[in-house]
Amino acid sequence: MSKSVSVGSVAIGGNARVAIQTMCNVKTSKIEEVVRQIGGFYDLGCDVVRVSVKDDDDLTALREIKNRIKMPLVADIHFNYKYALGAIDAGVDKIRINPGNIGSEKNVEEVAEALKRSGTAVRVGSNSGSVEKELLKKYGKNEISLAESALKNVAILEKHGVDNIVISAKASDVPLTIKTYEYLAKKTDYPLHLGVTEAGTVGMGVVKSSIGIGALLLKGIGDTIRVSLTADPKEEIIAAKRILRAAGLDKNYVEVISCPTCGRTEYDSIGLAEKVERLTSDIKKPLKIAVMGCVVNGPGEAKDCDLGIAGGGGVCAFFKGGEIYKKVPFDRAEEEFLKEIKKLVE
Amino acid sequence: MSKSVSVGSVAIGGNARVAIQTMCNVKTSKIEEVVRQIGGFYDLGCDVVRVSVKDDDDLTALREIKNRIKMPLVADIHFNYKYALGAIDAGVDKIRINPGNIGSEKNVEEVAEALKRSGTAVRVGSNSGSVEKELLKKYGKNEISLAESALKNVAILEKHGVDNIVISAKASDVPLTIKTYEYLAKKTDYPLHLGVTEAGTVGMGVVKSSIGIGALLLKGIGDTIRVSLTADPKEEIIAAKRILRAAGLDKNYVEVISCPTCGRTEYDSIGLAEKVERLTSDIKKPLKIAVMGCVVNGPGEAKDCDLGIAGGGGVCAFFKGGEIYKKVPFDRAEEEFLKEIKKLVE
Repeated sequence: MSKSVSVGSVAIGGNARVAIQTMCNVKTSKIEEVVRQIGGFYDLGCDVVRVSVKDDDDLTALREIKNRIKMPLVADIHFNYKYALGAIDAGVDKIRINPGNIGSEKNVEEVAEALKRSGTAVRVGSNSGSVEKELLKKYGKNEISLAESALKNVAILEKHGVDNIVISAKASDVPLTIKTYEYLAKKTDYPLHLGVTEAGTVGMGVVKSSIGIGALLLKGIGDTIRVSLTADPKEEIIAAKRILRAAGLDKNYVEVISCPTCGRTEYDSIGLAEKVERLTSDIKKPLKIAVMGCVVNGPGEAKDCDLGIAGGGGVCAFFKGGEIYKKVPFDRAEEEFLKEIKKLVE
Repeated sequence: MSKSVSVGSVAIGGNARVAIQTMCNVKTSKIEEVVRQIGGFYDLGCDVVRVSVKDDDDLTALREIKNRIKMPLVADIHFNYKYALGAIDAGVDKIRINPGNIGSEKNVEEVAEALKRSGTAVRVGSNSGSVEKELLKKYGKNEISLAESALKNVAILEKHGVDNIVISAKASDVPLTIKTYEYLAKKTDYPLHLGVTEAGTVGMGVVKSSIGIGALLLKGIGDTIRVSLTADPKEEIIAAKRILRAAGLDKNYVEVISCPTCGRTEYDSIGLAEKVERLTSDIKKPLKIAVMGCVVNGPGEAKDCDLGIAGGGGVCAFFKGGEIYKKVPFDRAEEEFLKEIKKLVE
């Protein structure tokens, strides 16, 4: 098991559930917009949010943002160690920085001291596009150099007594991502932040992230995840929730089982399945609802569902535990079924 | 390695590439609509298509459909062994049937003889909703009973000398799906047809299918895949292609690397990434194009790309091999970049 690291009120690693992260895509200095965006993330189920600190205005904004939001805040810093010190001083819960690229040993020491004094967590990590030349030469361009690049940054912090560390090692290549985190999980017990980087737009990005993050979670690897999409960050949170649910790590939701439509389907099961999904997406109860295209497979295949519907011959059959308990004509089926769901949920 | 089974002109298993399947959702007897739908599947890159045989009209339609389409045709049959015989006679390339539920030993023998005589392939399989009671009692409700249910049907066919077999064992639960196919891969060398059943609508269904199918493919398990979605079957083909690409099994395409937008992004990189994806989705060349939100990470992280763009300070930088070779103002960047892509592709 990984160590537990506290990021404000959220524990990452150890026995904690896998935390969902995303990043604001509004400039951090635009405080009102940032706070509003983070509110939306919170409502969607995001656990930890990151903002980038690109200039002095962004740095100045951190304290107010932190005070006005409900979830832990991470400051993303590149190169400039003074921004790291400023962010820690502003009370952020974690900083994202690589000590290997913030300059002199003295800079590193200052940041390390500030981290220890405040108890702020820190994420260090590597990216397949920026692995150090000497590591590429030593190990080749593979999971070892990518993982060792992250571990090198970990070692720098450890040397200075910092151990509140989360590690990431991201590639846009899915098999490489998986191999790298497997390597890290063997080498270290710091919690791991999973993600496939530059995964693309929603279409391809969700597929890449699902495979990469999902395959690792199923192996018991990973403590916090961020689905990186070139899209509205809300899509990242939705995809992350789906990955956790599909991987069996979040059972407290309404699972909608629905079959592919085929030549046997006689009613609009696609439309109904989508409506049922929307209607139930925020309900935190471990329920299973089936929307099946036909009576041939429907009730049998979905007999472990709490409620189900299957159509055929002008009517829809409603069933529970594989047993049909009601038949309703097609034209009234949708309305009636949505009522049954509401009853079930209450 | 799995055995190779011929499904018309497509090989499944052995050294063959993983074949993409989908299923028509138009009633099979509506020949014109079915043929038109299959034409669309073919253009999208589907390898094998299945239609359901629900009544005599569907059966009668098979021969004409088969003659008018370019890809191998599979007939999906439930319970009725006469439809199996009829489909084989009509020249379909594979049938989907479970010999365990078509009645007497004599029925099974007739179907087996027809399969052997014609060389038609057959898919047998189990579904977590319909595992036999005695197997549930013997093994419990788990991957073993689900896999053994499929293997029981395999054994019936083998007894009658049929060996042109593809196996499936589907669950809507992702971890169960993975464990079941891992079990099958150890127990048999028949090719495996992967899928997560009743996965849901596009949103959740793509995530479940990506994790389940993707994790197995990365372990070297699986010879043909079907992404089951409660959606237009074209979505199944698109998702299947993406899964193969993300798993590294199809390298002959234009990979679009694009970073999540963050507070550093100053131009519409989401819109551009989507346009680039659309523009290149059908190009069969192993190329990598990067659409990066900012110049901080862009060129470095994407230095192995054939072409890239990153924005900042009112201009977009175009780069190749990590080196910026051109700068274009934001307002002309998109148009110019799309031109560069066209040049690169030609």
